[in-house]
Amino acid sequence: MAVGLNIPDNLLPIAGIRLGTAAAGIKYPDRQDLLLIEISEGSHSAAVFTQNAFCAAPVQVARANITSAATRYLLVNSGNANAGLGAEGITCAKASCDTVAKLAGCDAKAVLPFSTGVIGETFPVERLEAAIPDAIASLKEDAWLAAAEAIMTTDTIAKGVSERCVIDGKTITITGIVKGAGMIRPDMATLLTYIGTDANVAPEYLQACLKKVVGVSFNRITVDGDTSTNDSCVLMATGAANNSLLDGKDKAASESFEAALEKVFIYLAQAAIRDAEGVTKLLTIDVESGADESECNDVAYTIAHSPLVKTALFAADPNWGRILAAIGRAGVADLNINALEIYLDDVCIVRSGARANDYTEEAGQHVMDKDEITLTVKLGRGSASTRVWTCDLSYDYVKINAEYRS
Amino acid sequence: MAVGLNIPDNLLPIAGIRLGTAAAGIKYPDRQDLLLIEISEGSHSAAVFTQNAFCAAPVQVARANITSAATRYLLVNSGNANAGLGAEGITCAKASCDTVAKLAGCDAKAVLPFSTGVIGETFPVERLEAAIPDAIASLKEDAWLAAAEAIMTTDTIAKGVSERCVIDGKTITITGIVKGAGMIRPDMATLLTYIGTDANVAPEYLQACLKKVVGVSFNRITVDGDTSTNDSCVLMATGAANNSLLDGKDKAASESFEAALEKVFIYLAQAAIRDAEGVTKLLTIDVESGADESECNDVAYTIAHSPLVKTALFAADPNWGRILAAIGRAGVADLNINALEIYLDDVCIVRSGARANDYTEEAGQHVMDKDEITLTVKLGRGSASTRVWTCDLSYDYVKINAEYRS
Repeated sequence: MAVGLNIPDNLLPIAGIRLGTAAAGIKYPDRQDLLLIEISEGSHSAAVFTQNAFCAAPVQVARANITSAATRYLLVNSGNANAGLGAEGITCAKASCDTVAKLAGCDAKAVLPFSTGVIGETFPVERLEAAIPDAIASLKEDAWLAAAEAIMTTDTIAKGVSERCVIDGKTITITGIVKGAGMIRPDMATLLTYIGTDANVAPEYLQACLKKVVGVSFNRITVDGDTSTNDSCVLMATGAANNSLLDGKDKAASESFEAALEKVFIYLAQAAIRDAEGVTKLLTIDVESGADESECNDVAYTIAHSPLVKTALFAADPNWGRILAAIGRAGVADLNINALEIYLDDVCIVRSGARANDYTEEAGQHVMDKDEITLTVKLGRGSASTRVWTCDLSYDYVKINAEYRS
Repeated sequence: MAVGLNIPDNLLPIAGIRLGTAAAGIKYPDRQDLLLIEISEGSHSAAVFTQNAFCAAPVQVARANITSAATRYLLVNSGNANAGLGAEGITCAKASCDTVAKLAGCDAKAVLPFSTGVIGETFPVERLEAAIPDAIASLKEDAWLAAAEAIMTTDTIAKGVSERCVIDGKTITITGIVKGAGMIRPDMATLLTYIGTDANVAPEYLQACLKKVVGVSFNRITVDGDTSTNDSCVLMATGAANNSLLDGKDKAASESFEAALEKVFIYLAQAAIRDAEGVTKLLTIDVESGADESECNDVAYTIAHSPLVKTALFAADPNWGRILAAIGRAGVADLNINALEIYLDDVCIVRSGARANDYTEEAGQHVMDKDEITLTVKLGRGSASTRVWTCDLSYDYVKINAEYRS
């Protein structure tokens, strides 16, 4: 069960972006597993992709296409990742772009393909292509929820959010959707997430904004430390709001836009954790007073990836010894354990490298019984800090991943 | 259930080493949870300890004592790690050494303390001290199995092995025991393991041998990537075999001794994985033809720590896409995926970065159904290689670690 998430019933349309879905039968019959996103002419799109050396075929094609032509269509399927198939995978991804281009009357390079699902299984490109006309026929602006549902794999709930801000007297809308679940530790990129806005944004500034907000959202989450082969994030700006061009020079306007964008991105990144495979708890890890951000990240991710911390979290067990052991093996040079403090929410559990004198098991248990917990580690070495979101490791994570292909 | 392990019924005594156990009631009543090892005068001991910055109090005391006096006694308890307790923990560890010293008539610095169990719980030093006379009274040479049983925590079976070699016309015996189970990724050190030999060995050479064999045994295993606060490994040499002094200069003699030692260490390290928490399968990961050992280790450990690879292993699912994804995120610079080959035992599953043409799911399944599997990754970049042992991630790992403190 997802932690603190409801089906998003108020996703706002973005003028200039239409979405269509269809049932291609990629993995299951009769499931809406194909999504087509149409972006109006004159829009700008920015994207970041997985840094995994084995990136999937659609990632390779999308990465090339987005630099060759203005993007007009995103074609997304769930149920099969089109990864690990060598040249055959590339052929399939390109063929699906060709089909969209022919039917929609655009350049094939204006189409970006995306896939999510099982790695290494033959990609049923004919079934996918056969469903494209249905997806085109169903294109409409008010279909973000249907789109969020179409891209789900082991996700248990559709995830999306909308946000508004006023720039230059014009109301700007941002709507984004995300799929996540497992194999999640985005690295300069993310799972599959599509964010549209009607703001009028200069292309270079759009890419800079994307990089900046991904850095504090999708690049700060982890379920299992496994960076996917298919992570992709696309930010589309149609300009339909007719604000004067956002290019980063007007400080007030940039700040408003970036703040709204950051809100959407952090919501979506957190949502991926709230709906992680087998999740029962959302853990926010704040590492403070480090010498630099890099060592703060080392500590935060060592805790976030520790199977022992994650199983204790699942058991609602304030087993702070495991947190301490994780910090101790994070590779921080000359760590002074006597300067260290650890808090569960506002309960101090460790001070001077040992259990705090005023700590009681009851106080720790009270925090651990919650669904959403903040763990704060103060290193006492400087002024750098970081924040990472993760979840627990439950029976269901094992069950889902032991049974995923069957 | 441990994989391919039986209770060791033929552990050979080592002349000059006596072992005694007692029930101290550290965590459970009436359990033999205290072990005392006596080493004869004139013996030499070498040790390596955890690199975790939060090393437990007994590790701090043992590390200091072994450099101050010739070691005569090792005092080991299970059920409580004496870790995370600050100054109080040090006081307890020293007090227990003092008690042994007083009763046995030796310097307190000749006693090394060791603890394993829950981190952060008050250490019942009075109960431990009260049981020391019983442990002393039960000291005898032929008690290695009882010793292996006394140091178990979530281990399901006692683990130990003996090996013999002939040096200088004299038969040399080596016997070792180990406890493991979880929080296992030794780093220049190990869990708790005690190895005795009657060989006559020079102290500097003994320490060099220990470092060398630990490097290819305990430093090549991982259950969950969590380096413990209490890892300790002690190698004791009594000299009772009366061989001419082994100091590394006689090449043939050194090779015989080191080969026997390596056999014992690799057996014990593997045994820790075979009896890991929730284990159902032993996975040997060979990474070959890397540019250097460091990148081979990065690839091997990224696979070994991937929750997705480990759950697929539990499900006996030849989900090679997850292996490929793990290799792809291991951080190897300029990895040429087209040069890559992956084998499950002798079945080639990936060639040129994609599923091998002659691979069949049946062949992959046949290997995955075994209890012991070798995964070979050929990077095609050079001549470096590494070998790492790990296990699967099962429901029982989660269960054991979600319930461990209760």
